[in-house]
Amino acid sequence: MIKERHGKTFETALSQGKVDEQMESLCRFISGTKGYYTSSCCSGRIMLLEKRGDRKKDNLFHRKWHREVSLEELLEGLRENTRGELWFKLEPFILHIGCANLRDSVKVLGAMKNAGVKRGGIIVAEKEKFLIELQGTERMSFRVKISGRAMVGEDYIDSIFPMANRMLAKNYSRLERLESEFRKTLR
Amino acid sequence: MIKERHGKTFETALSQGKVDEQMESLCRFISGTKGYYTSSCCSGRIMLLEKRGDRKKDNLFHRKWHREVSLEELLEGLRENTRGELWFKLEPFILHIGCANLRDSVKVLGAMKNAGVKRGGIIVAEKEKFLIELQGTERMSFRVKISGRAMVGEDYIDSIFPMANRMLAKNYSRLERLESEFRKTLR
Repeated sequence: MIKERHGKTFETALSQGKVDEQMESLCRFISGTKGYYTSSCCSGRIMLLEKRGDRKKDNLFHRKWHREVSLEELLEGLRENTRGELWFKLEPFILHIGCANLRDSVKVLGAMKNAGVKRGGIIVAEKEKFLIELQGTERMSFRVKISGRAMVGEDYIDSIFPMANRMLAKNYSRLERLESEFRKTLR
Repeated sequence: MIKERHGKTFETALSQGKVDEQMESLCRFISGTKGYYTSSCCSGRIMLLEKRGDRKKDNLFHRKWHREVSLEELLEGLRENTRGELWFKLEPFILHIGCANLRDSVKVLGAMKNAGVKRGGIIVAEKEKFLIELQGTERMSFRVKISGRAMVGEDYIDSIFPMANRMLAKNYSRLERLESEFRKTLR
C-alpha cells in the first residue's frame, strides 16, 4: 500500500519535471520493481546558497545546478547582489528507498556496498515499513560573500570550479554504478 | 562475544590515549551497557589535509585538531611548506555502535532522532551482528594551497575560522545531547 502511494507520487513528480534528470533512470527502475519505492531524492548539485539566518529554512537557493557548471554561470551568480552570507556548495546525491522488511533492506545495503557507496543505512525499521538512506561523499563548502562583499577573488572560483565539476561527475558516475547494482539484485 | 572483543579494544584505545576527549564519556557509557559496543569513532575535527593523489590513502594530516582552533595555529600550519593540494576541512563526528539485533538497533535510531542527529542508519544487519553509523552534519571544505602556492589570502582564513569554530562547538554540543539520549534509553 505504501509502495502504491509512493509510486503515484513519483509519477506525478516525474510528469511535473521535479525528478532530477541524472536520477530519473534509477528512480524509474526502483519504482518499477515489485518490492521497492523511492521517496525523496536528489542527484547531487553545485549551488550558491544564500544563508539569511541560522535555520535551514532561512536558506535561499541563489543558484542551483544539477549538472556541471561553467565559470560564466558561476561569476554571473556571484556578481549579483545578495544579502546575508553566500556559500559555494557541492553536495552529493541523496536517495531514500523504501521496502517492506529487513531482508529486502539488506539487499539494498549489499548493492550499495558493491557500487562503492560509502554512506548509507536503514533509517526506519517499522512493521511493513523500512527506509534506507544512501548518500554520496563528494563535497565542497565555503563562504564566498558576506552581505554583498566578496570574500574570495574570482581567480579562486576560476581555480576551484573545474575540480567541483570533476567531483560532481564522479558523483554521477557513482550513481550509475549504483543503478547497475540495483538492476542486478532488486526485484 | 563481539561486544566482549570490542570492549577490550576500547579499553586498549583508551589507555593509549587514542579516544578523542570529546567522545570519551559517550564511548565509555556505551561500552558499559549490557547490549552495545562502539567500534570506530571520531568526535569531529578541523584539519589541514594534504592531498597527494586521488586515493584516500594518499592523504596526509598536515594538521588536525579535535577542538576549536586559533588563527595563529592555522596560519602556522598554512605557512609551512606542503606538496600537492592543501585543503581546509571541518568534519562532523562519526560513530559506529554495535548490538545484537534489530530491536536494540531501533533504540539507537530513536535516541538519534530525539537528539536531533539527522544522519545515521543501520549499515550492517546480520545474525547477532548489527551496526549503526551516526554522523553529524557540520561541514566545511575548500582548497587553500596548490603545490605550496596559497589560493586564498590569510584574511580569508581570518574571516572563516571563527565560523568553523562555532560549527565545531555545535557539533560537540550535538554529541552531548546524543549521549544524554543514549543514557535515557540504552541498557
